[in-house]
Amino acid sequence: LDEGDLTTVEAILKDLHPADQVKVLSQLGDEERDRCLDLYEAPEIGPLISESFGRLREHLLDHFPPDVLAEVVQELDSDEAADLLQDLEDHAADRVLAGLSFEDRAEVEPLLSYPEDTAGGRMQREVFVVPAKARTRKVLAELRKVGRDLEELQDIYLVDNRGVLAGVISIFQLLRLELHTPVVEGANMDPLFVTPEEDQELVASLFRKHRLHSLPVVDDTGRILGQITADDILGVMEEEATEDLYRLANINEASDLTEPIIRAFRRRASWLTTNAVAGILSATIVSFFSGSISALPALAALMPIVANLGGMGGVQTATIIVRAMALGHMEGASPVRVTTRQATVGLLIGLFFCLIGAAVAYSTLGSPGLALVFGVSLALILLLSGILGSVIPITLKRLGFDPALVSGGLLTTLTDSIGFLLFLGLASWLLF
Amino acid sequence: LDEGDLTTVEAILKDLHPADQVKVLSQLGDEERDRCLDLYEAPEIGPLISESFGRLREHLLDHFPPDVLAEVVQELDSDEAADLLQDLEDHAADRVLAGLSFEDRAEVEPLLSYPEDTAGGRMQREVFVVPAKARTRKVLAELRKVGRDLEELQDIYLVDNRGVLAGVISIFQLLRLELHTPVVEGANMDPLFVTPEEDQELVASLFRKHRLHSLPVVDDTGRILGQITADDILGVMEEEATEDLYRLANINEASDLTEPIIRAFRRRASWLTTNAVAGILSATIVSFFSGSISALPALAALMPIVANLGGMGGVQTATIIVRAMALGHMEGASPVRVTTRQATVGLLIGLFFCLIGAAVAYSTLGSPGLALVFGVSLALILLLSGILGSVIPITLKRLGFDPALVSGGLLTTLTDSIGFLLFLGLASWLLF
Repeated sequence: LDEGDLTTVEAILKDLHPADQVKVLSQLGDEERDRCLDLYEAPEIGPLISESFGRLREHLLDHFPPDVLAEVVQELDSDEAADLLQDLEDHAADRVLAGLSFEDRAEVEPLLSYPEDTAGGRMQREVFVVPAKARTRKVLAELRKVGRDLEELQDIYLVDNRGVLAGVISIFQLLRLELHTPVVEGANMDPLFVTPEEDQELVASLFRKHRLHSLPVVDDTGRILGQITADDILGVMEEEATEDLYRLANINEASDLTEPIIRAFRRRASWLTTNAVAGILSATIVSFFSGSISALPALAALMPIVANLGGMGGVQTATIIVRAMALGHMEGASPVRVTTRQATVGLLIGLFFCLIGAAVAYSTLGSPGLALVFGVSLALILLLSGILGSVIPITLKRLGFDPALVSGGLLTTLTDSIGFLLFLGLASWLLF
Repeated sequence: LDEGDLTTVEAILKDLHPADQVKVLSQLGDEERDRCLDLYEAPEIGPLISESFGRLREHLLDHFPPDVLAEVVQELDSDEAADLLQDLEDHAADRVLAGLSFEDRAEVEPLLSYPEDTAGGRMQREVFVVPAKARTRKVLAELRKVGRDLEELQDIYLVDNRGVLAGVISIFQLLRLELHTPVVEGANMDPLFVTPEEDQELVASLFRKHRLHSLPVVDDTGRILGQITADDILGVMEEEATEDLYRLANINEASDLTEPIIRAFRRRASWLTTNAVAGILSATIVSFFSGSISALPALAALMPIVANLGGMGGVQTATIIVRAMALGHMEGASPVRVTTRQATVGLLIGLFFCLIGAAVAYSTLGSPGLALVFGVSLALILLLSGILGSVIPITLKRLGFDPALVSGGLLTTLTDSIGFLLFLGLASWLLF
């Protein structure tokens, strides 16, 4: 990249979709990236920041001065503006807010008080409301007037004279009405709504279930505060899925491919520490039996199989339970019945591996006693993995924690330690 | 439930959203459920089947005779009708198809030829198309006319006189036009589209990136075959997330809480077999070193720690890579650079646990040699887990497989076996 190339780069880069610009910029070195960023004007910076994530997002928020960011915030929808401000350091956010006009500030500031993963954190303030008694002709005329400022719009909210949500009508349904009829005739006068404190996972499930285009957010008195749109929900679903996947795999939810190496190291090492502590616990258990192992080293060869199958069986069960909870399939299901089913499946798998394991162990090692101990341990640990894999996430959820935290070491710590204790304990008791 | 209650049950049940009816019906015993189902008429059965999943769905498809299902299929959107038919046994599907009118059959049948996870499998045949040269007044009049049959509609497609896709305009944008202007003036004449073979994951990423309400599906000549709508995509994203989560946790993707116990047993046991085979491999490796273990049983206590941290570190890396691929963040990234970064993170984590591990081992066991071997093994296995956790999913994807298959035993087989080999090999070489 030398000076002469910059205009070509500018032309190519700005022709791309902002999400693709993000990809290109992520691949560049610090200096080249900054030179490219200097080519950007405020109206193009907004979409770029909205599409960015991880490390590049931090760079972008760092790179542009508060007055430029204030201009950017003014152009964005209020929900994206709030996301941007929430990702800034406190003092930087204050300086950007100070650069806003009174109206823009009034739009964005209330959104900053809601946590990002709630309905309030996901809503935009921009809504189109009409009086419930309005006629179709009037509403269509209003729509044409404000239409210029709005990019897209699907639903129109009807409010009473206190601003309380009374109904909802889609633009398509509006079109089907005669011009002189009141809009209430085509509207749904029993609309769904949420309060700003509602969890985003529940909001997403409402969208899925009722195939919504938008969902109004109201305060305690029913007055409209803003709306959430279907395209925001695609982002929410993506985020929730990543969160569950990462938690089950023992990773910090903010991790990604582009995070700085030192931060990746710190985050992953700290999560692995649970496994290391679990390792110390199970090593202590194993060391109690060093006499038996010394006399019969085949115990050392077989014991990891017991622990591994128990751990993996537990993770299978827990993953199914966690996913069912995320999709709302557990609502109304009896925890006792769910656990009993999973325990039964665990027992069947246990009996299966008991037979196979005992047969393989006997045929290779020739000791019927050792084969018996191995088989029985496998049966018991797999039964137990079905029980623990259900009970732990169900209990975590009951206590108000994220059920996906289950695999964060707790499950594998338990199955490893119990697996070693079972197998080596039974072996020492029966074989010596 | 006795006879007298049935009308009450009917009133309560049918007042619920179909998704909630599904939840209630899943909780009932076979006999009670069938008695409730007898209360259903064709128009209510469609939404019920569309919302059902797993075991209940099979029951429903089994319970209703072909002539009732034919009525149901007629009422559904073509994409849901096709899903229903695809879930029936072949001969049952043929009998339902035979009960359809010629037009309905012509709508649904072409959809049956596309795999469920492609754009073709997700599209509906119902689209609203107008000639590209139409004026706004004409289009609005058309919309009002067909409006009665359509539940919702967001985008209108413009076609040339051969039926080839020429543009797209949302209803909202249409409203903003003067009645006498041609619709092309408000339309996007460079619309996105896909062919029916396109993978649903790519379709979902187009919706996310471009915040689409709908996406036209066209054949090779550009003629419109159907459309995919945003609410279908919420289902796709849910499915894709479940698939990745399940594969990484070693579960069959069709598993859920309600599947019959015997099937759950068969599916999970067959996936655990990979782990069992891995166990035999690593047990064989351990048994090579039975002399060393017999002489120094502390080796047996420490070796699972090496294997576990290696496995968990590998799963962390692989999960980040698989998720980045699913979200499209890997496009354009250099595989070598990604692997190098993950290897560096692995090395740092390895050095960290090398120091801690060696210190803890020395202070508890008192042998500097053993502490050194333990620490070095931890460093090497964690470096290796960073490399394998990146290389395996990247290679799987290159070869055309699902990268999420990575944890299906392959990764843990490798880290377990290599971990034991490293630690016991180094120990036997240096300490004896």
